[in-house]
Amino acid sequence: MSKILSYCNNNLLAVCPQGGNTGVCGGATPVFDEIIVSTEWLNSVIHLDETSGVLVCEAGCVLENLHNYLNDYDLMMPIDLGAKGSCQIGGNTSTNAGGIRLYRYGNLHGNILGLEAVKADGEIIDCMNTLKKDNTGFHLKHIFIGSEGCLGIVTKVAIQCHPKPKSIQLAFLGAQNFTKALKAFKTAKQELGEIISAVEVMDHETIKFMWEHTDTTSPIGDYPIYLIIETSGSNEEHDQDKLNKYFQKCMDKHFVLNGVVTSSPSKSEQIWGLRERVAENFYKDGYVFAYDISLPLENYYDIVTEMKEYLGEKSHRVFGFGHLGDGNLHIQISVQKFSTDIMNYIEQHLYKRVNELNGSISAEHGIGFLKKQYLPLVKSEANMNLMRSLKRVMDPNGILNPYKVV
Amino acid sequence: MSKILSYCNNNLLAVCPQGGNTGVCGGATPVFDEIIVSTEWLNSVIHLDETSGVLVCEAGCVLENLHNYLNDYDLMMPIDLGAKGSCQIGGNTSTNAGGIRLYRYGNLHGNILGLEAVKADGEIIDCMNTLKKDNTGFHLKHIFIGSEGCLGIVTKVAIQCHPKPKSIQLAFLGAQNFTKALKAFKTAKQELGEIISAVEVMDHETIKFMWEHTDTTSPIGDYPIYLIIETSGSNEEHDQDKLNKYFQKCMDKHFVLNGVVTSSPSKSEQIWGLRERVAENFYKDGYVFAYDISLPLENYYDIVTEMKEYLGEKSHRVFGFGHLGDGNLHIQISVQKFSTDIMNYIEQHLYKRVNELNGSISAEHGIGFLKKQYLPLVKSEANMNLMRSLKRVMDPNGILNPYKVV
Repeated sequence: MSKILSYCNNNLLAVCPQGGNTGVCGGATPVFDEIIVSTEWLNSVIHLDETSGVLVCEAGCVLENLHNYLNDYDLMMPIDLGAKGSCQIGGNTSTNAGGIRLYRYGNLHGNILGLEAVKADGEIIDCMNTLKKDNTGFHLKHIFIGSEGCLGIVTKVAIQCHPKPKSIQLAFLGAQNFTKALKAFKTAKQELGEIISAVEVMDHETIKFMWEHTDTTSPIGDYPIYLIIETSGSNEEHDQDKLNKYFQKCMDKHFVLNGVVTSSPSKSEQIWGLRERVAENFYKDGYVFAYDISLPLENYYDIVTEMKEYLGEKSHRVFGFGHLGDGNLHIQISVQKFSTDIMNYIEQHLYKRVNELNGSISAEHGIGFLKKQYLPLVKSEANMNLMRSLKRVMDPNGILNPYKVV
Repeated sequence: MSKILSYCNNNLLAVCPQGGNTGVCGGATPVFDEIIVSTEWLNSVIHLDETSGVLVCEAGCVLENLHNYLNDYDLMMPIDLGAKGSCQIGGNTSTNAGGIRLYRYGNLHGNILGLEAVKADGEIIDCMNTLKKDNTGFHLKHIFIGSEGCLGIVTKVAIQCHPKPKSIQLAFLGAQNFTKALKAFKTAKQELGEIISAVEVMDHETIKFMWEHTDTTSPIGDYPIYLIIETSGSNEEHDQDKLNKYFQKCMDKHFVLNGVVTSSPSKSEQIWGLRERVAENFYKDGYVFAYDISLPLENYYDIVTEMKEYLGEKSHRVFGFGHLGDGNLHIQISVQKFSTDIMNYIEQHLYKRVNELNGSISAEHGIGFLKKQYLPLVKSEANMNLMRSLKRVMDPNGILNPYKVV
């Protein structure tokens, strides 16, 4: 990697770093004539410390392969994504990928203990330690986490893995409105605390669409808003007891109107199916614009209502669902057919409002090529300038992933 | 802050940022004629979102005051330190402070969701959001976390807080050797999993010294190595059950030879007293050199044995204790009296070995002024150059905390 980048830098050849090529913002797609530099062959597991749970591996290891490798040691990765079958840990690191486990185990800035990266000029930055605590000098590794291959190419990581849970439980709850659902979430934090592993929300529009267009059914009937709460723990009896008591408390306080609690893998799969198969079905309602935003919880669902009013008859439907526990909302808008006009009409309002509400226009997916134009809308001139300064320091010839991010 | 730094930068006046002034490496102490810029008056809590648990406050808030503030909302800070009565959250952030809660809640790179910092030229970098997921542009906030005030001064933070535990349990265990203690730690990860909140180790030399020089006693008698395992959870009955079963398993497998398990606050306090009052008593054995290192678990305790052999009759005693769960060892060496010769004799060997074993010469405490000379020993020339480049970009006139870190 060092030799490739050194050569490209000396000859002013632009490079597009690519891992599993599963990104959705075009960060790993060449725009003009960039040379694709793939990490695919850097796919070795280097070391696992079974006691500390620290895994050291090369950047090209596919996430699912790492999951499978760890399974034999009763360990698991701190990150899980829909794209796990092909995404690579180096790409996950470079995009600070989020996913379903983030609520429980935190983001990659917390879980990546060490990394090795190659700068644009071929120089190797070795931050490759396996320690939870290391305060020696500026924390250089974080420069490479989430910078989408624009400041260097990650070649190795050391990542904190966690014990595999012995018990997984699921609750599917129906609430009268979003405010009540938020109260149920807050109660979950108090009652379930350390065993919560996912808190997902889906609105009525989303579930109704699933009933109409797929073979799924709601196990509890028709409610304005639904919560899925998953727990993962080390003792099944304890976890069941906690979840049952939590459910009863939510019912007693009328935070939820109905619900079901299960530890059966087949029932859990059916419930998760409602949530996970959502995105792949919306195309049946026309062209779908999909957005991945974060919002403070107090404003989390307002944006869905507001977009419905704003769009009126211009859209078919506005769907709201997502990782409530992380404040991460997937808002998807179906229209009769794609047009640049309607896209601009949606995005100009949506991104402006998200910014006004102190949200994020890209929660998990990054900026890449597709959202680059919107970055200056949500970042101050000082922040943009600092990003450009960093880019110039790390990659003065601008060979690394040009036309992306900044 | 912006006006102060802008003035100092224009007039080439050096600045020493200072929070609670509790650092132990001289990072907050002026060396020559720097102007001390204190964050003491920036001490307001700005906002608490009770549902998400995100606290927004100014940099000068004292850690203990934040603990007390959150207590009323059944929340707690993700960080706890001995110096909490005077250290400030801005200083904690700038030094990436560690402490006892890190094992459970992760480090500040994971828990700081947003921050505001002022660059040397007075420009304000606003990364002030309260979102768990935000992948918009390079992750600038991490530049300021752990860079000890050399790259900017942190003025505000948004920090993820956690539900206050309803149950705290403690186990004090005696083992035959460090290898067995490690097995007991690994078993704890499997059996106690999500409820572990601290894993501490103390060697026989340390405990024996405490018996001889203080009014403490071991509740379980005399063993070569001791573990303290603390759990924090949301259900007392469940946690007691887990801890009792864990203890029984460790006894059955001979990982530990004896132990005691308690939920009594007074007994817990007595046990924690053994651990927490250690450092303040070593002076009774002569002059004490204190080191704060991290090591991979497989080599964690070897360094204590090795230093004993290396020093022979040059030292009185070598004490080993620390945050085993984080791989963080406090090794303290008592000698008859201080001399530069003995200090150099110790440090040249200790830091060389720590580096060879892929450890860290400063786990929690940072580099500051006192360890600056050792940084090039443990960082590659490429890493040192990148740190210097960052310093030049962020602070071209070198006014921010000069003579520190790099």
